[in-house]
Amino acid sequence: MLGSYLDNVRQAHPLIHNITNDVTINDVANVLLATGASPIMTAAPEEVEEIQAIANALTLNIGTLTLAVVPSMERAGAAANERQNPIVLDPVGAGATKLRTETAQHLVRTLRPTVIRGNMSEIQSLVHGKGKTRGVDVGVDDAVHENNLEAKIAFVENFAQDSGSIVAVTGAIDIVSDGKKTFTIRNGRPEMGLVTGTGCQLSALVAAFVAANPSHPLEATTAAVGTMGLAGEIAWERMQSGDGNATYRSRIIDAISLMDGATLDKGVNLHG
Amino acid sequence: MLGSYLDNVRQAHPLIHNITNDVTINDVANVLLATGASPIMTAAPEEVEEIQAIANALTLNIGTLTLAVVPSMERAGAAANERQNPIVLDPVGAGATKLRTETAQHLVRTLRPTVIRGNMSEIQSLVHGKGKTRGVDVGVDDAVHENNLEAKIAFVENFAQDSGSIVAVTGAIDIVSDGKKTFTIRNGRPEMGLVTGTGCQLSALVAAFVAANPSHPLEATTAAVGTMGLAGEIAWERMQSGDGNATYRSRIIDAISLMDGATLDKGVNLHG
Amino acid sequence: MLGSYLDNVRQAHPLIHNITNDVTINDVANVLLATGASPIMTAAPEEVEEIQAIANALTLNIGTLTLAVVPSMERAGAAANERQNPIVLDPVGAGATKLRTETAQHLVRTLRPTVIRGNMSEIQSLVHGKGKTRGVDVGVDDAVHENNLEAKIAFVENFAQDSGSIVAVTGAIDIVSDGKKTFTIRNGRPEMGLVTGTGCQLSALVAAFVAANPSHPLEATTAAVGTMGLAGEIAWERMQSGDGNATYRSRIIDAISLMDGATLDKGVNLHG
Repeated sequence: MLGSYLDNVRQAHPLIHNITNDVTINDVANVLLATGASPIMTAAPEEVEEIQAIANALTLNIGTLTLAVVPSMERAGAAANERQNPIVLDPVGAGATKLRTETAQHLVRTLRPTVIRGNMSEIQSLVHGKGKTRGVDVGVDDAVHENNLEAKIAFVENFAQDSGSIVAVTGAIDIVSDGKKTFTIRNGRPEMGLVTGTGCQLSALVAAFVAANPSHPLEATTAAVGTMGLAGEIAWERMQSGDGNATYRSRIIDAISLMDGATLDKGVNLHG
Repeated sequence: MLGSYLDNVRQAHPLIHNITNDVTINDVANVLLATGASPIMTAAPEEVEEIQAIANALTLNIGTLTLAVVPSMERAGAAANERQNPIVLDPVGAGATKLRTETAQHLVRTLRPTVIRGNMSEIQSLVHGKGKTRGVDVGVDDAVHENNLEAKIAFVENFAQDSGSIVAVTGAIDIVSDGKKTFTIRNGRPEMGLVTGTGCQLSALVAAFVAANPSHPLEATTAAVGTMGLAGEIAWERMQSGDGNATYRSRIIDAISLMDGATLDKGVNLHG
Repeated sequence: MLGSYLDNVRQAHPLIHNITNDVTINDVANVLLATGASPIMTAAPEEVEEIQAIANALTLNIGTLTLAVVPSMERAGAAANERQNPIVLDPVGAGATKLRTETAQHLVRTLRPTVIRGNMSEIQSLVHGKGKTRGVDVGVDDAVHENNLEAKIAFVENFAQDSGSIVAVTGAIDIVSDGKKTFTIRNGRPEMGLVTGTGCQLSALVAAFVAANPSHPLEATTAAVGTMGLAGEIAWERMQSGDGNATYRSRIIDAISLMDGATLDKGVNLHG
């Protein structure tokens, strides 16, 4: 069922505008190309509105946020909302600093993103105003596992209702909810956390999937989450003796570039 | 014949100063090292003139342009012109926004770059003041193919005459002209468009090739274009089952790092 | 003996705050993850002090320095010193421009970094106020080799005494000294110079090693230097026909991600 959402990305070639961080900007561009989407990266206040006029979605990622870039995010976001282009917010490191937490909360309130995607510490900090985020990583106490899953799902559903956004919390078990319907996905590998930017890549993929499947944003988001998790598994199977983190990084994008809907449908471990 | 221009880069080790975008800055540095050139990346207004005093060429790439960086481009460009260091302009995304189109036109007029390299939509937008660029990709109607080649060559030759620059338009068929003499190159793979930054890399290579072959800028530019296209072919031949976009990205730079003049001469498909 | 310092990084998971350059920022993040450390990259003046409050060390890298970022470096450095978090300074390109040389000298004087790591041209320019740095590469006359080793060691020891910092000069032979005790390391491959960012990666590793081994900063620095050099050798052994620069880049990080203390102890070529 999710596979068709991936196939639609390859057919629609959506143009995704990313205001993103300096660390993983190249991976984000390459992963979008790997699904048939086109990336355009710019935070220049002089052109973000013009870019939204030709783009199909907007990703806002605060991984190397400075105050100076906030007006560009606001302008691009307002332009996206006017044109009903979906917005995906990735609140990287929210909970670690006041700048990140408050900016992310401000963007949630004022832009009402179509989707918010982060780890559990980041998402909790959006609700509570502070969090246990360790740098850009989830705090140990916040991680989702089988024993606390029910409570975590209830939390995600509540936040989705309150924010009006689809909320995608990714980790060992991924939770995606629009407040009414909720999916859990059990794919991926713990080693994905040792490659910087798999979360950033996923947020950009969510934008591409939602842009290409405008009437099914919840399912499209879920399909993007499943695609990234399954790619992490396929990539891991291809690792050979002597291969490490850097090769794994390439293999994940390789797996996405080769994945079709049928493969996703066969490999995704979806509930809900 | 083109091979010697590549060999000269490896012998001369030119130092190439790049004011470039955040997306592909790492690939640009690595591809320069792959040909024996040395990269230095800086847009700091306080040092661009000093860098030009030790550099052998300048690349200006507007892929993530902001207005704030334009004065650095102007200063670096003026310093390059004073020292007769070649300047290569890559008008990434010209045609997509006013900021990009007008800045690129301004740089063409005021700096008179030695070489302008872009896709056909970008180059057309420099002439017409607007274009069909889709983000940073060529518009479908603008692409060069066998059926419209003659008209496209005439356009490139005219622009080369008017601008006083060598113009290199790359795509399925590449056209390089100084307005008097024109080369076409048929190398490369369509899959290169699914790796971000192959164009940016090529523009930096053009700077290295022209710096190392100062009396033959047209042929040096053509050799750089041929090197990138041939590298795309060699890299593709090395792809194995399960390899995708990210591995292809690495293999292209690998192929450049291993290429010598004899290989280029043997593999390039050159007319003109 | 050095192996335990590497193992301690994997156990301590230090959080390393990097104010670094745009060229190699992704490699720096990935190499930290490859040793079990966590990277956080930010130069936002609004949050660098908060980040230091949760971080275990600070890396300052001037590879794409602008004047605008200097106050962030000063603030982060002052916060690190207050908390006794180690600071590693990488004076990339010092000697090439006044901006770089003087900023690096200013940071050495005012922050008294725990460790200064650079090539010999960069380090000499910190002492002499100017240097023979070629872009970001060592000048030919400055390189350390067996014939000038004694004099170079004396120079490094003097600078370590004068600056109050551990000084790590890397090249064909690496020299690490705190002014009282000095180590030399003969590992690595000349081909590492053809991959951008191996120096930047090493500086971040030094921060992780010193953070995880706070009572032995000299030995921890030496262990980081040995780890990078040995990784370059292991990566080179894995290169196959057709592999070039870009594959080598990945293999180096792969080798670090797979290295344990026993492998380091066995492979390091250490004197002192």
